Amino acid sequence: MELKTDLSKFNNSWYKKGGNPAKRLCWYMVNAAFFNSAFPVNSAKVFLLRLFGARVGQGVVIKPFVNVKYPWNLKIGNHVWIGERVWIDNLGFVVLNDNSCVSQGAMLLCGNHHYKKVAFDLIVGNITVEEGAWIGAKCVVCPGVKIGSHAVLTVGSIATSNLLPWSIYQGNPAQKIKERVIKG
Amino acid sequence: MELKTDLSKFNNSWYKKGGNPAKRLCWYMVNAAFFNSAFPVNSAKVFLLRLFGARVGQGVVIKPFVNVKYPWNLKIGNHVWIGERVWIDNLGFVVLNDNSCVSQGAMLLCGNHHYKKVAFDLIVGNITVEEGAWIGAKCVVCPGVKIGSHAVLTVGSIATSNLLPWSIYQGNPAQKIKERVIKG
Amino acid sequence: MELKTDLSKFNNSWYKKGGNPAKRLCWYMVNAAFFNSAFPVNSAKVFLLRLFGARVGQGVVIKPFVNVKYPWNLKIGNHVWIGERVWIDNLGFVVLNDNSCVSQGAMLLCGNHHYKKVAFDLIVGNITVEEGAWIGAKCVVCPGVKIGSHAVLTVGSIATSNLLPWSIYQGNPAQKIKERVIKG
Repeated sequence: MELKTDLSKFNNSWYKKGGNPAKRLCWYMVNAAFFNSAFPVNSAKVFLLRLFGARVGQGVVIKPFVNVKYPWNLKIGNHVWIGERVWIDNLGFVVLNDNSCVSQGAMLLCGNHHYKKVAFDLIVGNITVEEGAWIGAKCVVCPGVKIGSHAVLTVGSIATSNLLPWSIYQGNPAQKIKERVIKG
Repeated sequence: MELKTDLSKFNNSWYKKGGNPAKRLCWYMVNAAFFNSAFPVNSAKVFLLRLFGARVGQGVVIKPFVNVKYPWNLKIGNHVWIGERVWIDNLGFVVLNDNSCVSQGAMLLCGNHHYKKVAFDLIVGNITVEEGAWIGAKCVVCPGVKIGSHAVLTVGSIATSNLLPWSIYQGNPAQKIKERVIKG
Repeated sequence: MELKTDLSKFNNSWYKKGGNPAKRLCWYMVNAAFFNSAFPVNSAKVFLLRLFGARVGQGVVIKPFVNVKYPWNLKIGNHVWIGERVWIDNLGFVVLNDNSCVSQGAMLLCGNHHYKKVAFDLIVGNITVEEGAWIGAKCVVCPGVKIGSHAVLTVGSIATSNLLPWSIYQGNPAQKIKERVIKG
């Protein structure tokens, strides 16, 4: 007999959300009020992220309407930029290394489903954006993907697998289109 | 003489929005307050959808910031998931059958325009997502498209025509890339 | 030695935001309250855009949750439609000519970065959408791009270079797929 998806059998009890329920509820409200909102005070956002367990470096810029799932799953280096309406859906751990930039409307997506299983099991993948890399506006980085140092994902592209360092990718799925070279 | 678009000639008076103006205004406010917001109580959302004419099955999950145009144009089966920031722009009728999943940031788009006409006439198309299908994060399903049973539309892909059952599609426009098989 | 991105060296002091700081703060709040919100009164939005320096023609439709960066960088012709959740990120000047339509969820993106430079310098490009053109839902128009008269950018496509008039483009990057002809 042909097997079918049965979402009533879904079971993600193995997944550890981190924090306790009260902390998660607090963050949910803080995120709604101060991150996923027009609230513009950058230093307050950095303070709040750290308060809830994120590791955040110096010179970090966080624009309005950013949506962060779990700050305790987030590590941000120095001089990192997070653009307006960026969505960090970090069921898994997200690392944004020094001088990386995630532009407006981009999404870092850590959750996936095992679509070959009846119960559509949750799969969580960490995302790492290495030093100096640039995730363009309206891009999506898929679960488990590592963005190599100084790689560029162009506007609206979908990174479904690792990006090589110093390389520029475009499309869905993103393909390497050229090298990146930085000149003085 | 070359004909041009003239939006002042647009006329959608033939289109029946459903409900009466008071009901539509009520839904507009309910949607803003309880759906397209951080409001997290799933059972209240199911109750409200049914109150405004949607048919909603058992075990349905509706995440925050979902945007529903007209609930009276919506039928949801059992054990269906609707992810965060999903946009159901249902000028036409949308059916989400049992065990289907519409992931975060996806859009079900029922409105189109006749771009070969001066008046840019409105064209409305219904959308059906068959049993067990999965619309990935940040996808768009275009007007009139039927997503076959257990089809998968991968992250950020654009379904411009029907998707065959048990098939996985990717890209813009989405193309079939492989079969889906569910194992025990 | 290999040169790397250093965002601490970023310097956009040459960039003129327009208006004075008080005016910009006012607009930031007006945008949050009346544009990027469920506020539905079209005539009030046209009034406010003009008050803050936009040039806006007759018969313009502006749907809810539109996000406008700087109204003084915006010129809208007659009978132009701006759909729900359109994002006009106009660091540069944006012109929407008569009878053009920017559909729901689309983005007009005027900011770029010089990724071949250590300081990741800001690059600003103006966007022009010519008469009768149609930017489809969830599209992105990139900095410096001109959309030719009556061109069409299909749903979810990314315009990275100019679109020829009377032509239909699809994909990322958007490629011409056919001609547009308007019949009586």
